[in-house]
Amino acid sequence: MLPVRAEAGKSIRSAAADRYQIKTMTQKTTVRGFRASAVKAGIKYRNRLDLGLLVSTSAAAIAGVFTRNQVKAAPVMAGIERLKNGPPFIRAVLVNSGNANACTGPRGLADLHTLCSRLAEEMDIDPSEVLMCSTGVIGEPLPVDTMLQAIAPLVSGLSRTGIDSVAEAIMTTDTVPKICTKTVTMGDSNITMAGIAKGAGMIAPTMDPPHATMLSFIMCDARVNPVWWQEALERAVESSFNRITIDGDTSTNDTVLALAGGLAKNKTVCGGSEGDLLEDALADLTQDLASRIVKDGEGVTKCVTIRITGAENRDQAMAVARTVADSPLVKTAFFGEDPNWGRILAAAGRAGVPIRQELLTLRINEIEIVKNGVGTGREAECAAGTAMKKDEFSVTLDLGAGRAEADMLTCDLSDEYIHINADYRT
Amino acid sequence: MLPVRAEAGKSIRSAAADRYQIKTMTQKTTVRGFRASAVKAGIKYRNRLDLGLLVSTSAAAIAGVFTRNQVKAAPVMAGIERLKNGPPFIRAVLVNSGNANACTGPRGLADLHTLCSRLAEEMDIDPSEVLMCSTGVIGEPLPVDTMLQAIAPLVSGLSRTGIDSVAEAIMTTDTVPKICTKTVTMGDSNITMAGIAKGAGMIAPTMDPPHATMLSFIMCDARVNPVWWQEALERAVESSFNRITIDGDTSTNDTVLALAGGLAKNKTVCGGSEGDLLEDALADLTQDLASRIVKDGEGVTKCVTIRITGAENRDQAMAVARTVADSPLVKTAFFGEDPNWGRILAAAGRAGVPIRQELLTLRINEIEIVKNGVGTGREAECAAGTAMKKDEFSVTLDLGAGRAEADMLTCDLSDEYIHINADYRT
Repeated sequence: MLPVRAEAGKSIRSAAADRYQIKTMTQKTTVRGFRASAVKAGIKYRNRLDLGLLVSTSAAAIAGVFTRNQVKAAPVMAGIERLKNGPPFIRAVLVNSGNANACTGPRGLADLHTLCSRLAEEMDIDPSEVLMCSTGVIGEPLPVDTMLQAIAPLVSGLSRTGIDSVAEAIMTTDTVPKICTKTVTMGDSNITMAGIAKGAGMIAPTMDPPHATMLSFIMCDARVNPVWWQEALERAVESSFNRITIDGDTSTNDTVLALAGGLAKNKTVCGGSEGDLLEDALADLTQDLASRIVKDGEGVTKCVTIRITGAENRDQAMAVARTVADSPLVKTAFFGEDPNWGRILAAAGRAGVPIRQELLTLRINEIEIVKNGVGTGREAECAAGTAMKKDEFSVTLDLGAGRAEADMLTCDLSDEYIHINADYRT
Repeated sequence: MLPVRAEAGKSIRSAAADRYQIKTMTQKTTVRGFRASAVKAGIKYRNRLDLGLLVSTSAAAIAGVFTRNQVKAAPVMAGIERLKNGPPFIRAVLVNSGNANACTGPRGLADLHTLCSRLAEEMDIDPSEVLMCSTGVIGEPLPVDTMLQAIAPLVSGLSRTGIDSVAEAIMTTDTVPKICTKTVTMGDSNITMAGIAKGAGMIAPTMDPPHATMLSFIMCDARVNPVWWQEALERAVESSFNRITIDGDTSTNDTVLALAGGLAKNKTVCGGSEGDLLEDALADLTQDLASRIVKDGEGVTKCVTIRITGAENRDQAMAVARTVADSPLVKTAFFGEDPNWGRILAAAGRAGVPIRQELLTLRINEIEIVKNGVGTGREAECAAGTAMKKDEFSVTLDLGAGRAEADMLTCDLSDEYIHINADYRT
C-alpha cells in the first residue's frame, strides 16, 4: 500500500502522488443524497482548489469528534458548541485549506459566522444547518472577502461527483487525496459510505472522545438514530484516527464529521445486529483513511504498526505504544532500516509504566529479536533488518505482565520531514 | 557560547569541535585528592580513549542519581543497589564508552563485577569501593577480556591531570569534551569542584530524583556530610540535568555521581550557610554542564530556553515547558528560524494542562508576538525572526493563570540529527 522507496532523483512523496493519482482519476466517489463542490478561492495559494462544500439533500444526522487540544481553532469551538446545543441534523459542511482560523480571537468566530451565513443564504437553508472546518497556517485571519466571492460559484458547482474534488481541496502538505468507500447490505437496503481525509503533519489525533490537523468527512446514505450514530463514530475514531501518530503533535483543528442522510430508506439503525454491521463498516472506513494519512505523512518512507501485548491493562499498553511510536530515536532507526531494539526498549521504559525488563520479548514482524530482555543474536537481527527494508512492518513488544494489548500506527522520521517543516511558512 | 553556524562545506559539529578543542588543550583540570586516567581499550572503535578511571586518594563521600527509565542498564542497577545498601563512601569510578551494558541480562551484572573486582585488586581496595558506568550501544555484552587487559595500564596511568582525558573517554556522539570547574571560599578553606559530562542524544534526563545517556561525574575536595551531599546533588540535578531535553528520549544509563574527598579540610558541611554556598556552586556547575550538553546535542544549531510563566502551579508549568520543548514541529521551526508561534501554542495546548487560549502571551526574547491568544502582527514577527537567527534565544509563554513558573533548555531538530541517528550503528 505504501509507495515504493524513491529511486535516485525522485522523492517518495512524488512517487506516492503518481501512484494514487491514477486511482483517483479512474473512479468518481458518489453517495446517494450527497452533492459536493470545490473551487480555487485563492485563500493562500493561487490556482489550486482550497474551498470545498459537502451538502446533504436531506437533513443529515450529524456526529462529530474534535481535537482535545486546549488551544482550539474557531471552527472547532463553533462545531463543539453547535453539536452540543443544536438539533443533531445539518445540511452542509464548508471546509477550507491554507488557513486554520486558529488563534484568531473573537474575529475568527465572527468570520466563520459571516461565511456560514452567506452560504446558508445562497442555499436557502438556516445558518445553524452549516458547519465549517479549516486547516492550514495558524494565527492569520481568514481572507473573508476573497472567500465570500467564492460562495456563489461553490454552490452553483455542486454535483453528485464532486466529492473527489473536495478531497483535493482540503489537502495541505498531503501529496495525495485520501478517499475510501464501503458498502453494506442490510436487509433489502444497500448502504454506501464514503469518507475523505487530509493530514500529513501535526498528526497525533486525540479527539474528544479522540487527536491531529487531520480532517475527515464521512457521508453515508443510511438512516440512523443520531445518538447511536455519535456513539458509533466515537468508537470508530478511537480505533482508527486516535491510534495513529506522525509527529506526536496534536493539532488545534482536528475534526471528524459523519453525516448520515437516510436516502437508503433502511429501518433506522440504533444498535443491535444492524448497528454492528454499520459500525464495522464505519470502523473499516476510518481505519483505512487513518492508515492513508500515516502513509502520506510528511517525509514518511516506512509505515510501522507498534503492537504492545502482555500488558497489565489497556491504558498501560496504550501508554507504552504511544511512547514507542513517538520516540525520535526509534523513528530515525526505522528510517535507517536499523533493528536497533535497544532504542525500542529504552522508549518503552520511559512510558511511565512499571516494566520488568527481564520479561520483555520483541519481534519485528515474526522475527523474535529480544527474549527475556536480551538480544537473540546477530542472525535474528539480520533477518529483522531485511524485514525493515519493506515499506511496512510491525514491531510487537510483549511486556510479560498480563493480557492487555494496544496498537498504534506510526512512521519513520526522515530528513524530508525536517525540510518540509523548517520551510513550511516561507 | 554556541558554535557559530556552519559555513558551507563545514558542519556545525566540526566547527564546535575546533572551537572547544583549543580550550581543552590550554588548561588542565585538577582537584586536590583526585587522580584520573584514560586508555584506548578498543571497546568499540580502535585508537580512541574509551575507558576512564576517576580515583579519590581518600574515601570520598558519594552521592548519585540514576535514570528513572524502567529499563535500566546493569551499571545503573548495580549503582542504585550499592548506594542504597553500602556505606556512603567510595574510592573509584570506572567508566567506559562504546557499550552501554544495557539489556545484557544477568551476564551484564556478572561482567561488571568481574571488571570492578579486577580493578579493586589492582588498586588494593575493596570491590565495594568501586562504581562503574557505561554508555554506548544497547544490547551487546561488554568485551570483558579486552577490557580486563586495559585495567593495569589504566591504573598505572593515574595522574593529577588525567581528568580531561576521562572527559574525552566518555564521549560518544559528543563532538567536544564537557568540563567545568568552580571554586568556593569557605572560611579559611578554598574548595574546588570539577565536573565532566557527556551526552548528545537520547537526552531527556529524568533521574531519580531526576532523566538522559548523559553521564556526569563531579569531584570536589570539600569535606561533607554524605546525607546532605546526596540531598544537595538531587536538588542540583533537578534544576540542571532534569531541565534539559534534546530529543525527549530518556536513556537506560543516565547517571550523575558526585564525590567529595575532603582534602580541603573544611568544617564538615551539613547544610546551613556553608551548605548554601557549596550547593550554589554545585547548582552552577551542573547547570553549566547541562547547557553544554544541549549545545553539543546531536545536530543542534540552536539552543533555546523555554520559559513558562503565569501557571497555576509548578507541575503544570513543567508539563507545558516539556511538551513545547519536545515538540518536533516547534523544534523544526527553530531550525528554520521561523517564528511560527501557532506551533508553540498548539504544543502548549496538548500538554494535558487546562489552558485559556485568550489569556496567552508569547515572547521571543523580549519581543511580544502573541497577546491575548492572537498574533501582534507582521512587524513583531519579523523582529522575532531576526532574534531567532542567533544561536541562542528564549521563548516565554505566559499562561495568565497564576504565578508559577518553570523552564527547560532545548534545541532545534535538524536534518543532521536524522543522519546521525539513522546511521548510528552502521
